[in-house]
Amino acid sequence: DGGGVESLDYEVIENFAYREEQALRGKLYVSYLLVVKWFFALLIGICTGLAAVLINIAVENFAGWKFSVTFDIIQKSYIAGFVVYVLINLALVFSSVYIITQFAPAAAGSGIPEIKGYLNGVDTHGILLFRTLVGKIFGSIGSVGGGLALGKEGPLVHTGACIASLLGQGGSTKYHINSRWFQVFRSDRDRRDLVTCGCAAGVAAAFRAPVGGVLFALEEVTSWWRSQLMWRVFFTSAVVAVVVRAAMGWCKSGKCGHFGSGGFIIWDISDGQEDYSFAELFPMAIIGVIGGLLGALFNQLTLYITTWRRNHLHKKGNRVKIIEACVVSILTSAISFGLPLLRKCSPCPDSDPTSGIECPRPPGMYGNYVNFFCSKDNEYNDLATIFFNTQDDAIRNLFSAKTINEYSSQSLLTFLVMFYALAVVTFGTAVPAGQFVPGIMIGSTYGRLVGMFVVKYYRKLNIEEGTYALLGAASFLGGSMRITVSLCVIMVEISNNLKFLPLIMLVLLISKAVGDAFNEGIYEEQAQLRGIPLLESRPKYEMRNMTAKEACGSGRVVSFPRVVKVSDVVSILRSNKHNGFPVIDHTRSGEPLVIGLVLRSHLLVILQSKVDFQHSPLPSDSRGGGRSIRHDSGEFAKPVSSKGICIDDINLSSDDLEMYIDLAPFLNPSPYIVPEDMSLTKVYNLFRQLGLRHLFVVPRPSRVLGLITRKDLLIED
Amino acid sequence: DGGGVESLDYEVIENFAYREEQALRGKLYVSYLLVVKWFFALLIGICTGLAAVLINIAVENFAGWKFSVTFDIIQKSYIAGFVVYVLINLALVFSSVYIITQFAPAAAGSGIPEIKGYLNGVDTHGILLFRTLVGKIFGSIGSVGGGLALGKEGPLVHTGACIASLLGQGGSTKYHINSRWFQVFRSDRDRRDLVTCGCAAGVAAAFRAPVGGVLFALEEVTSWWRSQLMWRVFFTSAVVAVVVRAAMGWCKSGKCGHFGSGGFIIWDISDGQEDYSFAELFPMAIIGVIGGLLGALFNQLTLYITTWRRNHLHKKGNRVKIIEACVVSILTSAISFGLPLLRKCSPCPDSDPTSGIECPRPPGMYGNYVNFFCSKDNEYNDLATIFFNTQDDAIRNLFSAKTINEYSSQSLLTFLVMFYALAVVTFGTAVPAGQFVPGIMIGSTYGRLVGMFVVKYYRKLNIEEGTYALLGAASFLGGSMRITVSLCVIMVEISNNLKFLPLIMLVLLISKAVGDAFNEGIYEEQAQLRGIPLLESRPKYEMRNMTAKEACGSGRVVSFPRVVKVSDVVSILRSNKHNGFPVIDHTRSGEPLVIGLVLRSHLLVILQSKVDFQHSPLPSDSRGGGRSIRHDSGEFAKPVSSKGICIDDINLSSDDLEMYIDLAPFLNPSPYIVPEDMSLTKVYNLFRQLGLRHLFVVPRPSRVLGLITRKDLLIED
Ligand SMILES: Nc1ncnc2c1ncn2[C@@H]1O[C@H](COP(=O)(O)OP(=O)(O)OP(=O)(O)O)[C@@H](O)[C@H]1O
Ligand SMILES: Nc1ncnc2c1ncn2[C@@H]1O[C@H](COP(=O)(O)OP(=O)(O)OP(=O)(O)O)[C@@H](O)[C@H]1O
Ligand SMILES: [Mg+2]
Ligand SMILES: [Mg+2]
Repeated sequence: DGGGVESLDYEVIENFAYREEQALRGKLYVSYLLVVKWFFALLIGICTGLAAVLINIAVENFAGWKFSVTFDIIQKSYIAGFVVYVLINLALVFSSVYIITQFAPAAAGSGIPEIKGYLNGVDTHGILLFRTLVGKIFGSIGSVGGGLALGKEGPLVHTGACIASLLGQGGSTKYHINSRWFQVFRSDRDRRDLVTCGCAAGVAAAFRAPVGGVLFALEEVTSWWRSQLMWRVFFTSAVVAVVVRAAMGWCKSGKCGHFGSGGFIIWDISDGQEDYSFAELFPMAIIGVIGGLLGALFNQLTLYITTWRRNHLHKKGNRVKIIEACVVSILTSAISFGLPLLRKCSPCPDSDPTSGIECPRPPGMYGNYVNFFCSKDNEYNDLATIFFNTQDDAIRNLFSAKTINEYSSQSLLTFLVMFYALAVVTFGTAVPAGQFVPGIMIGSTYGRLVGMFVVKYYRKLNIEEGTYALLGAASFLGGSMRITVSLCVIMVEISNNLKFLPLIMLVLLISKAVGDAFNEGIYEEQAQLRGIPLLESRPKYEMRNMTAKEACGSGRVVSFPRVVKVSDVVSILRSNKHNGFPVIDHTRSGEPLVIGLVLRSHLLVILQSKVDFQHSPLPSDSRGGGRSIRHDSGEFAKPVSSKGICIDDINLSSDDLEMYIDLAPFLNPSPYIVPEDMSLTKVYNLFRQLGLRHLFVVPRPSRVLGLITRKDLLIED
Repeated sequence: DGGGVESLDYEVIENFAYREEQALRGKLYVSYLLVVKWFFALLIGICTGLAAVLINIAVENFAGWKFSVTFDIIQKSYIAGFVVYVLINLALVFSSVYIITQFAPAAAGSGIPEIKGYLNGVDTHGILLFRTLVGKIFGSIGSVGGGLALGKEGPLVHTGACIASLLGQGGSTKYHINSRWFQVFRSDRDRRDLVTCGCAAGVAAAFRAPVGGVLFALEEVTSWWRSQLMWRVFFTSAVVAVVVRAAMGWCKSGKCGHFGSGGFIIWDISDGQEDYSFAELFPMAIIGVIGGLLGALFNQLTLYITTWRRNHLHKKGNRVKIIEACVVSILTSAISFGLPLLRKCSPCPDSDPTSGIECPRPPGMYGNYVNFFCSKDNEYNDLATIFFNTQDDAIRNLFSAKTINEYSSQSLLTFLVMFYALAVVTFGTAVPAGQFVPGIMIGSTYGRLVGMFVVKYYRKLNIEEGTYALLGAASFLGGSMRITVSLCVIMVEISNNLKFLPLIMLVLLISKAVGDAFNEGIYEEQAQLRGIPLLESRPKYEMRNMTAKEACGSGRVVSFPRVVKVSDVVSILRSNKHNGFPVIDHTRSGEPLVIGLVLRSHLLVILQSKVDFQHSPLPSDSRGGGRSIRHDSGEFAKPVSSKGICIDDINLSSDDLEMYIDLAPFLNPSPYIVPEDMSLTKVYNLFRQLGLRHLFVVPRPSRVLGLITRKDLLIED
């Protein structure tokens, strides 16, 4: 396990080539860099915004067209309608799963665990490729448009990250635009900031929540954060908000088909409940507990099912994956069409002209009170209102105010159970899938259920079931994802109502605490399952009693001398899988001295290019001058999400093998070091906070040459 | 300079006592700690919320009473009214400056630079004492109630931080509650988190902006951040919001005097401008530029004036400070009363019953259109509306919608110039003073001016001058403080309108960029002036070409042997001012070995208690057992914001001086180390990210005992 996973080099390798390059660059370069970074933030914002618009328009049009066709046909025959409905869904889901399995396997799932891993320092193969981006966008359109119990929001985060990374490297690796201009972002470290921007942009686009996007990137995804970056991330999110707003304005004129009326989720409940009494806090707390329990259960069930899928089903190849997704699609269609048929319709309530809500809703429109399989014209089917509908509309209906008693508790319970089951089963099929919207669906259903009881027993006038639905949604997401601040802000931004902030917080506090008692958050669990070794921000408790030496084991350290024979390099690289090696030289008096760390990837570049081979086994004193550098730091740059060269790819003649390499110009001269008996807690902090990949454990020093305190670091420009 | 400034020990000192204590504590202790931390977050929220309520009620009542008395008197005589007005203001300001100079000198100013320093690792003497808290609260009431050109928001941040720190140590140092319960928060490191919570609580209370509070603490104040902390900080802010809301609800019933109608700033403009055209972006950009210029000028002028004050005025003692504040108060009163007298009144506009705004405003009420020195009854004085008013009401009037053409450009210009001058002069007087509200006043004035031009030349119907005033406020704060994301969110939360987010961002982007071209933000400049050496999150550009050895200079390192004579300790501590010393032992074979770092403060505790003195110059092998620890880690804990013991306070007999101390149990056995030729950039990152105080520069190691990679740190619980 963890086969496709390698660490990223977030540390700056201050080798000779790097230092030469730095020396050539003046102070002006710093400003240039700044401008380029802001420009990229702008670009990322625009592109992510456009991608989100594309996905939304496509999904809304497919789904809208699907429902209007079905509604047309069921006027004549319910069976024909059912067949058409199933077939359209099947076609969409099939196209999605086909794209994913044949073309972009890394685009399956939500992508958030992988991006989280990337920003934590672990590279999962293929997650930031161009084909993954394409697969994610079109796969999402198919899977969401096809009515599966999953959302398009998680994939949008991955989409944003892909866009950011691809822009940063100047296009796809295949169609590489090799311009000097893009050389700025060639290290993992630079790309990290871009990917953070992309994540925030994705969330901002998904929920039209710029502040929520920044906080999500900050709280949930990224592992390192600087306040300069924050402003740039925020800028990106705001650009997204502007792009999306502009697109929506343009769509209002009817140019986007079905999109005009639905589209970007923003379940405005600014006309919701005005105030709340203290007595209401109790049912709200209950919502929190339910959310924690159901969320933790969801995590556990999806964990089992994903493990089972991996070990039994998905091993058998792509055909099984395709069949699986198609079966799930047919199941989903059958349930969402069939169950409302079994439900008796209810008579419309006395219409209230001020609320602007019609019953039944006029054909071809969005809204509450769907007339489906009803005998009379002024009746509606409450189960169809939520089940036989796009998810966005269903949520809008569940959140809606001034619709007290629209749903029967029986319908809500049926929906809750069935949709929960569907969401669990759908999780892990080979299509792009987000958990936000299904989570909101599930949560708002039981939230509204609790709300109905409150309306019944508290007998207060201004209680709105929609408000409880919102709290339910927050509680389920909190119980499953265990996100806190950003979820709060996202819920406030999508409901467009600042008043609910303390209530949402209360519910989240409880649901997260309850959920934490059972298991970890869904992203952490999925990351673990996929073999992505995330380093948490806190060291484990056991580390207090361990030392650095104990942690790194007792194996002999594989190291290189300064000047090394090519054949030795090859055999050492073949004999192990380590990615970094200490380089040991000798002082004039013959004592050994650690002069740095050389990376496997750099050694491979040197072996491949061969220009640095020399005949003499003596160091060619590169610092003394004379010799010009034969590499610029760009050659050592690793392409995004590719495995780079492998030792077996390199062909060396027997003459080559007899030559020598002086490693001094290529090594990182000062990796971070820790004394052998430092407690592992402190080692962990160092490793995690600085985002390292290698750390040398050395003997206690024999002398202290100087102390560095704050004063020594206060250098004026 | 920097005399009163010492670094804080944010590093965990893993000495013998600490490790013993850790060993005694089971895993349950971790849960206990968690509960205590949340409990404290709750407490901090409640207390800060109550403090904010107290300040607001007091200020509103003093100010409200002042204005109603003055309005009553000027019905008969303007001169008598003027005298009363000046005297009330003078009395309030005098009480404030008297409290500050005599009782709590550390409470002067806004306190944000000091708190920022604290969280960056620098302790300014006295900022977190109980007397500072008291001085801050009552001083704020006096200075804001007295009508000076300053605000109560900055001081509230300091108040929150004080409350947090005092709660953390269980009350004031003098009235120390020595309960085991509070031993959790005795290290600087633990208090750091509490103070962060306190800051966020302060902002949340000041602006009723919980999200803004969290982001302010995150972006502007704190230097280290973890996502667990974020949730706790957010909780604190939300508790504040609830407390404040409850208090306001209680006040609505009229129990708080004048507070009922005014009070907590929240300049709701949710009924403001609905939409904006692209053409409006140009004047908005101009607002941004003006904000950047005026903000940078403000920083520069206040820098000059504060330097001058420090070097010439405040040296002469407290009496001068008191006189100065009184002069400023009289000046402010004279201008704010006198200038509106010179202004001709304008006739009331045709009243619009839907807007609910009366002209002139009824006596004893808050609102637009103040009738002051007008000959007719249906006239109002536009300058008095903003000048002869509390700042909160003035801002509300400037932000107000549906009041187009209320102000003449002449009045706004006069007010802008005079208030700007007053704000500059007031800055740095010895009273608690925030810069938020004056900044909003200045900004909204020129914002409204620009808005008037837009209304005039763009001839669009739905343009509101109030919206431009809001953007102006944002631009000035951005140009002066250079805060970004949090300012955006705060502006959105106080205006209660999410729609303006992109506009505020645009304006802030421009004003910050323009301001940055001239100088640093006001908090950084003030911190520098006060000798608070903040370490920025980024290393300076010059550091790339420096090594660790170069930075720490060439002075001989002062170190201790493991077992040291008491007289030597005393003489070494007397001979220098260093705060940390390496301890050197010898191996069996006689080679030197660095065994750790001992802090001056710990040495002083040992010297004072004397229990560890021994007669023999041989190490008493403390690890081997037998000897029990004579200190618990609590004895080494430093009280908050006190200088601790000084070497001159310690009296030792000549017998004592002949004895020995074995330092082994007291030292930090593994301080972080860097090799001598590591580039200073990397050293800086290590020092800054981990919040260190001392760092050993050591020779390059001769061997590598092991490598630590990600795999080694993935330990399962
Ligand atoms: N040069 C080396 N000599 C000896 N042991 C090493 C060396 N490099 C790493 N190790 C040890 O071998 C184990 C695996 O190392 P490896 O380099 O494969 O790292 P890894 O954890 O897979 O990191 P990455 O994420 O970089 O692949 C680690 O536990 C580490 O202690
Ligand atoms: N034990 C020591 N021996 C020699 N030089 C030292 C020692 N400790 C510190 N120094 C050097 O002396 C200078 C001042 O050190 P000092 O201990 O006063 O620290 P400081 O910068 O004031 O830190 P603090 O903020 O802890 O007071 C620093 O530049 C440091 O390099
Ligand atoms: Mg590996
Ligand atoms: Mg000092």
